[in-house]
Amino acid sequence: MKLIRFGSIGEEKPGVQLDNGTRLDVSEFVSANYNEAFFGGNGIQELSDWLEKNERNCPIVSDDVRLGSPLVRPSKIVCVGLNYAKHAAESGMTIPKEPVLFFKATSAIVGPNDDVIIPKNSEKSDWEVELAVVIGKKASYVEEKDALDHVAGYVLHNDYSERAFQIEKEGQWCKGKGCDTFAPLGPFIATADEIKDPNNLNLWLKLNGEKIQDSNTSDFIFNIQEVISYISQFMTLLPGDIISTGTPSGVGLGFNPPKYLKAGDVVELGIEGLGSSKQLAKAY
Amino acid sequence: MKLIRFGSIGEEKPGVQLDNGTRLDVSEFVSANYNEAFFGGNGIQELSDWLEKNERNCPIVSDDVRLGSPLVRPSKIVCVGLNYAKHAAESGMTIPKEPVLFFKATSAIVGPNDDVIIPKNSEKSDWEVELAVVIGKKASYVEEKDALDHVAGYVLHNDYSERAFQIEKEGQWCKGKGCDTFAPLGPFIATADEIKDPNNLNLWLKLNGEKIQDSNTSDFIFNIQEVISYISQFMTLLPGDIISTGTPSGVGLGFNPPKYLKAGDVVELGIEGLGSSKQLAKAY
Repeated sequence: MKLIRFGSIGEEKPGVQLDNGTRLDVSEFVSANYNEAFFGGNGIQELSDWLEKNERNCPIVSDDVRLGSPLVRPSKIVCVGLNYAKHAAESGMTIPKEPVLFFKATSAIVGPNDDVIIPKNSEKSDWEVELAVVIGKKASYVEEKDALDHVAGYVLHNDYSERAFQIEKEGQWCKGKGCDTFAPLGPFIATADEIKDPNNLNLWLKLNGEKIQDSNTSDFIFNIQEVISYISQFMTLLPGDIISTGTPSGVGLGFNPPKYLKAGDVVELGIEGLGSSKQLAKAY
Repeated sequence: MKLIRFGSIGEEKPGVQLDNGTRLDVSEFVSANYNEAFFGGNGIQELSDWLEKNERNCPIVSDDVRLGSPLVRPSKIVCVGLNYAKHAAESGMTIPKEPVLFFKATSAIVGPNDDVIIPKNSEKSDWEVELAVVIGKKASYVEEKDALDHVAGYVLHNDYSERAFQIEKEGQWCKGKGCDTFAPLGPFIATADEIKDPNNLNLWLKLNGEKIQDSNTSDFIFNIQEVISYISQFMTLLPGDIISTGTPSGVGLGFNPPKYLKAGDVVELGIEGLGSSKQLAKAY
């Protein structure tokens, strides 16, 4: 199943996207939306069962309706840094011996095709196509062999990053990772059954039509099982939480000279099986 | 007003604590609990007005009922690192020229007197008494002179930190800052009108009865107005969000040799006007 949320900002309703692209409103069934309770309960299975009987009666969502983030604000977004060898190199960092983790502010989440706002005083806003994992079951001290049992689905994420805020300011990376609109999620969450091997998916990103990120998650330094198990040694992952698994090479920071977002730039990105998204850059 | 939440874990109801210590159940009025909508709307004023008429009819909460965190899980906890000069020195860090920020996982939030769980494989779990600010109004690009208008109240926080996870592991601090139970909040949120000068409050922490942190927020390197304004340059602070303003000297890391939590240790802490809390350390 492909889970979507649609409608204006702050008023998104739950829906599903069928394989033929048709979008259905399922808010009659999913009253509480795609949140911790939905993913942590038996929400996906119950919705699937209900759809089988009720699909014909669901209102169709018109193509021109805005998509929101396909899940309600989670407790946290845990990101893996430098998880592709070539990206570590282009960032001038060594290949990590264990996953590098950081948090992204959940208030940065927006819909997949919403504008990305270049913050005030930003000169180094950058893009990062990433495969994000949606947790479906509490994960604490999980072994790698059991890790995928804790996954509800997968979603496309652009981990926008302001490099000066992230790296040149004192302290931790969060100043450049938590800016408003810096976490477009979607177009949809593909439930886990839809993705045969999340560690083997093509992913790409285009800046103004030119493909500048183009890789496959098989290049992960730490695969999804390793990452989930590793994070769960430090903190409990809750249903609906997001793990963003890192970006391949081709970010603006890696160009010589570096390239950064300007107002009017168009960023398009996609992952095999997870659709694509498109953001127009605007100045604050 | 002093806002509390009481009841068993996951089922906390909203209440208030009167100046004589009596705790009242106000769930009849505050149906949705102390969350983003409450702080972002006119919740505090409306509750105050309602209490004036209804205080006598509110059920009393018995003293033996557990206190939960006095607010529902926020969108984020933004922490300021190294914000007292002596603590920066004891941590072997230089005094920052601008606030050092990091995020703490909101899934670490527990009640003020809940046990602190020493994580598996932890040998360096440490304490940090901190004054935390609760945001009452969206804050984006706020000037210092207006910053306190965005504060709903203040709350006592113990920013537990696993130093090996935080500092010795690769990458960012979040591995040692987001562990479960590492963010006891409370006993109550004192609404902003109760605290005359948040930049001049005594705060202390005792380990097994011995006072080892003892300072005053007047020793801040960056005061609350500066911190709110600074953070708001990078991301929007939402109602109910927490800013934890840093800890003074006296953490375990600063002792020679360092002292860290052992199962059975009792940690007590308090801030002038914000009450005290007490955590028993247990092994996972």
